[in-house]
Amino acid sequence: MGYEEFTIEGRNAVIEAFRSGKPIDKVYIQDGVQDGPVQTIKREAKKHDTIVKFVEKERLDQMSKTGKHQGVIAMAAAYEYAEVEDILEAARKKEEPPFIFLLDNIEDPHNLGAIIRTANLCGAHGVIIPKNRAVGLTATVARTSAGALNYTPVARVTNMAKTIEDLKKEGMWFVCADMGGTTMYQLDLKGPIGLVIGNEGEGVGRLVKEKCDFIASIPMKGDIDSLNASVAAGVLAYEIVRQRLS
Amino acid sequence: MGYEEFTIEGRNAVIEAFRSGKPIDKVYIQDGVQDGPVQTIKREAKKHDTIVKFVEKERLDQMSKTGKHQGVIAMAAAYEYAEVEDILEAARKKEEPPFIFLLDNIEDPHNLGAIIRTANLCGAHGVIIPKNRAVGLTATVARTSAGALNYTPVARVTNMAKTIEDLKKEGMWFVCADMGGTTMYQLDLKGPIGLVIGNEGEGVGRLVKEKCDFIASIPMKGDIDSLNASVAAGVLAYEIVRQRLS
Repeated sequence: MGYEEFTIEGRNAVIEAFRSGKPIDKVYIQDGVQDGPVQTIKREAKKHDTIVKFVEKERLDQMSKTGKHQGVIAMAAAYEYAEVEDILEAARKKEEPPFIFLLDNIEDPHNLGAIIRTANLCGAHGVIIPKNRAVGLTATVARTSAGALNYTPVARVTNMAKTIEDLKKEGMWFVCADMGGTTMYQLDLKGPIGLVIGNEGEGVGRLVKEKCDFIASIPMKGDIDSLNASVAAGVLAYEIVRQRLS
Repeated sequence: MGYEEFTIEGRNAVIEAFRSGKPIDKVYIQDGVQDGPVQTIKREAKKHDTIVKFVEKERLDQMSKTGKHQGVIAMAAAYEYAEVEDILEAARKKEEPPFIFLLDNIEDPHNLGAIIRTANLCGAHGVIIPKNRAVGLTATVARTSAGALNYTPVARVTNMAKTIEDLKKEGMWFVCADMGGTTMYQLDLKGPIGLVIGNEGEGVGRLVKEKCDFIASIPMKGDIDSLNASVAAGVLAYEIVRQRLS
């Protein structure tokens, strides 16, 4: 795990990187260069909420590793996905029962970042996200995770329900957050546990929910429907922490 | 409390509204109108993440209340701030000991919105924010609060430390979230309580912290420094809920 920065140089390479969804932290553009491709890069940067810095050609020459920057260099972060096995291994190393977050289609990168941050601080051994539809490890996720992405392994899987089945064979229990379940304080959440958090709008998908051993509900006293997904994940994760500490 | 939508009509009025930071939900622009002020409005809309819709002149004529829309109508939300007394009154009405969130300079509108959402669902009677520096009730806050802003009163005060002093005279206790305090599970958080959450980067200010009766810490097992502010608020709020329920 962990990430390092590398440069993407030249107009087409940078445009392509943006369009492929590569996480780009910053773009350096040569002062005064204003042609079509550079305008496109500026638009893409704005769209992706990426910082643009205008610098002298000399600065770009210094940064360049290829010598062919054409007036544009992007700094990209290469995030490595872990394997599910790496997460189990992390738990074994610490001699702790596995504690894993499984995110069933979180779409908002701010939520994903905040959840990885929570996973790190509550002592979870890793986070599992689905390969399709959900947001991946973009630059916004990395920023919002406040560095947690350097420590907490994130694995991507094709079929979340299948992954849950496999992990059950390792002795894990799965609790999914949803309304209409058992109040979380009344559940025993001390063993090797997977905490399943659903999509912001739709909650946990049916197939995934069916694989879970418990449905845990956060008590709600208010007028609206549900907590923000990253807040709900935090509240449930810390109920697990409380039970493990007591 | 609650909010209603009203129209702001004409180019200058809309530009001014954007620049003054008024929460604007949507801007309707007449199809084909492209002059300078309209370009400015589009730029401001983009900057503020406001939806722009291009519509026929007839549609604008229908929406207009002044008859002088000049091709531009903005829909703005008017959020009313409550008074601290309204929050205490809400607790009295429900015959519950007051439970209030006090936010010492939350800067990110997504965090403020998520915290108001949490306050609503955990049964808090209101939220107090400072008049200066912190973010106010913008359109982003309203959106992120998922409707909670319609139910949970938010009051603004000039001097948070002074407000805490005044509320102590009403019999309230104050707990502030910070590192190096007592683990939250070991504190008695059942009475009339104010939960103080600090700024995203700097935490709770010294003057405010000195007024608090307890410092509550969330147990941290990880490698990074702190939870996201809205997640921390949620975790602490639900420890208060747990203690009140038990």
